[in-house]
Amino acid sequence: MKKGTLALLIHGGTDNWSPERWQARFNEVCRDRPVLSLAEARSAAAEVHYAAVWKPAPGKLAVFPNLRAIFNLGAGVDAVLADKTLPDVPLVRVAVGDLTGRMTEYVVLHVLMHHRQEPYLRQSQREKRWAPKAQWAASAISVGVMGLGTLGADAAQVLCRLGFKVAGWSSSRRDIAGIDGFHGPDQFDAFLRRTDILVCLLPLTSDTRHILSRDVFAKLNRSGPLGAPVVINAGRGGLQNEADILACLDDGTLGAVSLDVFSQEPLPADSRFWTHPKVVLTPHNAADTDPDEISRYVARQIERFEAGGALENVVDRERGY
Amino acid sequence: MKKGTLALLIHGGTDNWSPERWQARFNEVCRDRPVLSLAEARSAAAEVHYAAVWKPAPGKLAVFPNLRAIFNLGAGVDAVLADKTLPDVPLVRVAVGDLTGRMTEYVVLHVLMHHRQEPYLRQSQREKRWAPKAQWAASAISVGVMGLGTLGADAAQVLCRLGFKVAGWSSSRRDIAGIDGFHGPDQFDAFLRRTDILVCLLPLTSDTRHILSRDVFAKLNRSGPLGAPVVINAGRGGLQNEADILACLDDGTLGAVSLDVFSQEPLPADSRFWTHPKVVLTPHNAADTDPDEISRYVARQIERFEAGGALENVVDRERGY
Repeated sequence: MKKGTLALLIHGGTDNWSPERWQARFNEVCRDRPVLSLAEARSAAAEVHYAAVWKPAPGKLAVFPNLRAIFNLGAGVDAVLADKTLPDVPLVRVAVGDLTGRMTEYVVLHVLMHHRQEPYLRQSQREKRWAPKAQWAASAISVGVMGLGTLGADAAQVLCRLGFKVAGWSSSRRDIAGIDGFHGPDQFDAFLRRTDILVCLLPLTSDTRHILSRDVFAKLNRSGPLGAPVVINAGRGGLQNEADILACLDDGTLGAVSLDVFSQEPLPADSRFWTHPKVVLTPHNAADTDPDEISRYVARQIERFEAGGALENVVDRERGY
Repeated sequence: MKKGTLALLIHGGTDNWSPERWQARFNEVCRDRPVLSLAEARSAAAEVHYAAVWKPAPGKLAVFPNLRAIFNLGAGVDAVLADKTLPDVPLVRVAVGDLTGRMTEYVVLHVLMHHRQEPYLRQSQREKRWAPKAQWAASAISVGVMGLGTLGADAAQVLCRLGFKVAGWSSSRRDIAGIDGFHGPDQFDAFLRRTDILVCLLPLTSDTRHILSRDVFAKLNRSGPLGAPVVINAGRGGLQNEADILACLDDGTLGAVSLDVFSQEPLPADSRFWTHPKVVLTPHNAADTDPDEISRYVARQIERFEAGGALENVVDRERGY
């Protein structure tokens, strides 16, 4: 296949994710290939063969008549798929080891913080109280991971190594050594009933939107040592019903949450999430992947594709991820 | 060997660690063996063959003429060895999977908290600031574990699985897959120079007392992404020079510390550790082992010993652990 041109459709990134930094980076890894900025691509639409995109506005991709593939620079493709005019070419998502490792760090950190009663211990330090509480072992806690793709599977395995009882739930069956596997709608309730700490790493699709809601929280295990279940969402804000989360924290249906994502980001200053004593929040930084690794990944995929190989991690549009 | 009697010399425990709870527990696992309380043992000293001890006062063990072995109910034997009248019989320390797993939880949690900038993120939440900072991957951080016994080796392996560059330092050579091994005084400086986060799990001996001091902190790596090195001590309070830690936090030689142990416990109310912004402290609860598992471990060891087997995890008094 003839060597194609790559256009960068990058909106809104700052610092390391600014359009200028991305262009410098792609120029580095695509040495014999033209790399066009957003403005350059607009004035030479017919020459664009590949698009690397970050938060493109709807309609922006439809103007390129000779597009061969689209590379989303993040793992979640829900925003790109929402574009009704998206060209019918392969859409590739990022799947690099760096992103997986960072997400596992986040999940392990937040599971351990709740398990080891960190909010209580920090409060005790502020109040100068030497007051250790009884502490159970990891083996007393059932963690349930929703979503057993690359990210969920890796996090589940490390939690298992730490001694937690780990189950996973996914749309289709996945067998992972040491992980108690559940799949499909029929097994969802059984998965929830045995779960003390629920970790959500699902993709956002029409099936999963607002899946983190009161009827799910009410089915989680209430008889574990934590006293009330804990929810950790590092997937997408659209997965959570935020009014339900706050109401369930208030009435004790949930004991605590860790949230990295929100329906509106940055989180508005008047959100109750900022100040709720049972909320641990992070500013959507669970898995800020190294842009150098992402750009090398895209360049490698294009080279292999032009040499006759298949693209990897192509999104199934029917499934939505 | 004739079945012997077990005496419990347990001082100062509360709740699950109270003398009464220990007696009930040992009665459960030593069904055919007399189990004496401290008071009962005093009035029948010649009948005592084994002693299970927790913080015994000096001289308390010297009164038993027919003692065969002493079982310390914790991993650290420094306090017991300080007793100049300690009978010359095998002293056994606790080494159960539950204790190892809990210590690994603590170490992994505190390494991740510093690595993932948790103190900054909690401060941002309190101030309602959505302000993610650049976050490096685990592979950018060198963790150095001092002490590669059962505890240190397990923690090092999980940190390695999470992607950290992990080295270990111990008095004698230890080879652990994936861990960069250093040993002895000659390799100590090289170990410190490559370390961003120093984890101390050493036993307390005359060689290691106050090893965590300014001259060690000053040799740690200062050019890593953390900006300044971090120290985590979950071993013994006697390992640390507390005035040096505070001075080094104040002048920037150290960026932060996590301390689970102190020279005086409970930590006095006027200690600066409570309020220092760079200190994460926990009330000596890194590895509160399940007493049921400890009592089963002691009962198993006595049974095997009486059947002609060797005691395991016997302390080398020369070495001090």
